[in-house]
Amino acid sequence: TTNGDRLWDAIMEMAKIGPGVAGGNNRQTLTDADSEGRHLFKRWCDEAGLTTGVDEMGNMFARREGTDPDALPVYVGSHLDTQPTGGKYDGVLGVLGGLELVRTLNDLDIKTKHPIVVTNWTNEEGTRFAPAMLSSGVFAGIHERDWAYDKTDARGARFGDELERIGWKGDEKVGDRKMHAMFELHIEQGPILEAEGKEIGVVTNGQGLSWTQVTVTGKDSHTGSTPMPMRKNAGLGMARILELVDEIAWSHKPHAVGAAGHIDVYPNSRNVIPGKTVFTVDFRSPDLAVITDMEQRLDKGAREICEEMGLGIELEKVGGFDPVAFDETCVTAVRNAADRLGYSHQNIVSGAGHDACWIARVAPTAMIMCPCVDGLSHNEAEEISKEWAKAGADVLFHAVVETAGI
Amino acid sequence: TTNGDRLWDAIMEMAKIGPGVAGGNNRQTLTDADSEGRHLFKRWCDEAGLTTGVDEMGNMFARREGTDPDALPVYVGSHLDTQPTGGKYDGVLGVLGGLELVRTLNDLDIKTKHPIVVTNWTNEEGTRFAPAMLSSGVFAGIHERDWAYDKTDARGARFGDELERIGWKGDEKVGDRKMHAMFELHIEQGPILEAEGKEIGVVTNGQGLSWTQVTVTGKDSHTGSTPMPMRKNAGLGMARILELVDEIAWSHKPHAVGAAGHIDVYPNSRNVIPGKTVFTVDFRSPDLAVITDMEQRLDKGAREICEEMGLGIELEKVGGFDPVAFDETCVTAVRNAADRLGYSHQNIVSGAGHDACWIARVAPTAMIMCPCVDGLSHNEAEEISKEWAKAGADVLFHAVVETAGI
Ligand SMILES: NC(=O)NCCC(=O)O
Ligand SMILES: NC(=O)NCCC(=O)O
Repeated sequence: TTNGDRLWDAIMEMAKIGPGVAGGNNRQTLTDADSEGRHLFKRWCDEAGLTTGVDEMGNMFARREGTDPDALPVYVGSHLDTQPTGGKYDGVLGVLGGLELVRTLNDLDIKTKHPIVVTNWTNEEGTRFAPAMLSSGVFAGIHERDWAYDKTDARGARFGDELERIGWKGDEKVGDRKMHAMFELHIEQGPILEAEGKEIGVVTNGQGLSWTQVTVTGKDSHTGSTPMPMRKNAGLGMARILELVDEIAWSHKPHAVGAAGHIDVYPNSRNVIPGKTVFTVDFRSPDLAVITDMEQRLDKGAREICEEMGLGIELEKVGGFDPVAFDETCVTAVRNAADRLGYSHQNIVSGAGHDACWIARVAPTAMIMCPCVDGLSHNEAEEISKEWAKAGADVLFHAVVETAGI
Repeated sequence: TTNGDRLWDAIMEMAKIGPGVAGGNNRQTLTDADSEGRHLFKRWCDEAGLTTGVDEMGNMFARREGTDPDALPVYVGSHLDTQPTGGKYDGVLGVLGGLELVRTLNDLDIKTKHPIVVTNWTNEEGTRFAPAMLSSGVFAGIHERDWAYDKTDARGARFGDELERIGWKGDEKVGDRKMHAMFELHIEQGPILEAEGKEIGVVTNGQGLSWTQVTVTGKDSHTGSTPMPMRKNAGLGMARILELVDEIAWSHKPHAVGAAGHIDVYPNSRNVIPGKTVFTVDFRSPDLAVITDMEQRLDKGAREICEEMGLGIELEKVGGFDPVAFDETCVTAVRNAADRLGYSHQNIVSGAGHDACWIARVAPTAMIMCPCVDGLSHNEAEEISKEWAKAGADVLFHAVVETAGI
């Protein structure tokens, strides 16, 4: 039903903007490349006859009118920003899958009862500005707009300033739009669907996340002339906490996970014992009680480690969301669509956070997942097949048309 | 004999160039601030009537003529470059102590038999470009000039290009100068002299160093959707190796030390399991056999850790020097000077590497140490007293005049 070649071409066209160093993308949020990607998406939306709008968080909305003037729109979409060494599909598939959906509706000259709005959410990845899913979070009333504006990147640039600089701060009040439903198509970013040989994941739940930023303070001093007993090595304290994080995650088999992806060491000189380290611990589980337990054990254990070593420590929660259950009607629409189209499918829990997880707080929401090769994501080598992409877009098309009504 | 106020004023004047963020200095090698510091030093040398020269490595030499046209010069000096968060005295005391020595000779109208040359060695710290003591090492024939030129900083800038850019690449062939002797005055950078209540350290030996750069490779992947058993976490591998480094150093009590000051994590994003970490292990001991043992245990242990975790590893030696014994005659000259002046003193082994450690390979060499508060160095809070500085300069003055002859 959808045009797999056209969808694939659009993905490859988008991937030319903000190329990475190893075949993937570096199109981080609110960079010049992000702006360029947005312009391309808007041009495509204009060409498809959609009406575009941008809100104060830079969230982009492209609307195809429905036949019922009173009906709330069905939203589809995801994000166009990427990791610093990200893939071509994470987020992009959901936005351009939404575009393919309206292009197909145009081709078939189908009018839906409810309008359909294709969305690009700003700063889903959260690398440049924590937390992740920032702007869908503001849309859903989880965060304050001005709190988000004040977030700074590693160089100290403010989110609000950067949004203005790239020219994508809109006038529309964030969160004002009301939704009939929302569907997000996304790659799995994990190995399950491929391993099980399934084309479609019917996402029933999303696991929760907790980001704790840990700052360990020791004392910068000379690596040569500071005797071992006099050292306050913040790097060694960090090493012990990283080991603890791993232990805690393994203790909640099989579902919980934990790691630190972000690690900064100061002053980062070969012959200076680190006086400070700042790193972010990422814990996840589908079970809120497990997340809470992991947070508490990190707090207690890390403090003990630092106390014993004479180091200072601060722990700050810099991001997180609770596990989410998606809307039963919407999930059923996804499952029915996969059945009707004859795609193999199974229920799945999302390991990653998604904009849909926040939108689920304010509207009936569901997600559709496609497999990805080796479960690899947040890596330039992230790969999917054209067939998987088309299957996802087909299911999206059918679920959305069923929900929007003809 | 020397003028403690004048010396102190010169140190404080130099500290205005390349100020740090916490009262110290960031005057890293081959930066604009380094160039500015060199200009100030040259102006002072010109005013003192010295003849200045610069070699191909940017090493600066300021010569005061002697009375015997055939006598080789006595060299004094140290370095003006600093750590990124360095102190005001590390290196600077030795260069400006040398300047104070010639200023005093000028005041007293003393002519020495041997000429005296005050030296500023380029890139002693080794933070921006490894290894440390780079240019005294080229001078002493330890490294090739062109090998040094090709060293790159974290941004990829070449040493040779940066030296040219700041305007301090001289014509003089490096290492051509012959020395009668060389004396370096330096702060201890450790806690011993202060703890023992001694004004002067008579440096008999310098401990050896080994820098091993370790690269651990895993696989970038999503922190949320990659199950624990499928992870290849290069950050966790690094944490285990850091723990091993600490264990190895402690096993050679009381003298050996070990730590990693430089740590980089890639791609350094909160929700990406580190696919690569690069860090430098710094091992030191006054005993060469201990250094070799530590290197071997690191190599073996780190490989085992990575093998078990399915990670790749490369270890590369990026710097190092053997323990050194200083020249007996020069050391005695230092001890005699301290005795004559009535300063309390003791023998000491240098914990840090110094330019004098390389020059000792090609000329009779000794070092004089001053205490520093809490043994703290490579820290902006590095502190010494004016009295300690003057005591060091006085001993330098007497040892050099004795060696240069009147
Ligand atoms: N899908 C995705 O990678 N989202 C970013 C938030 C997260 O780390 O889960
Ligand atoms: N003195 C000093 O800090 N030199 C740098 C080389 C070393 O790390 O020992």
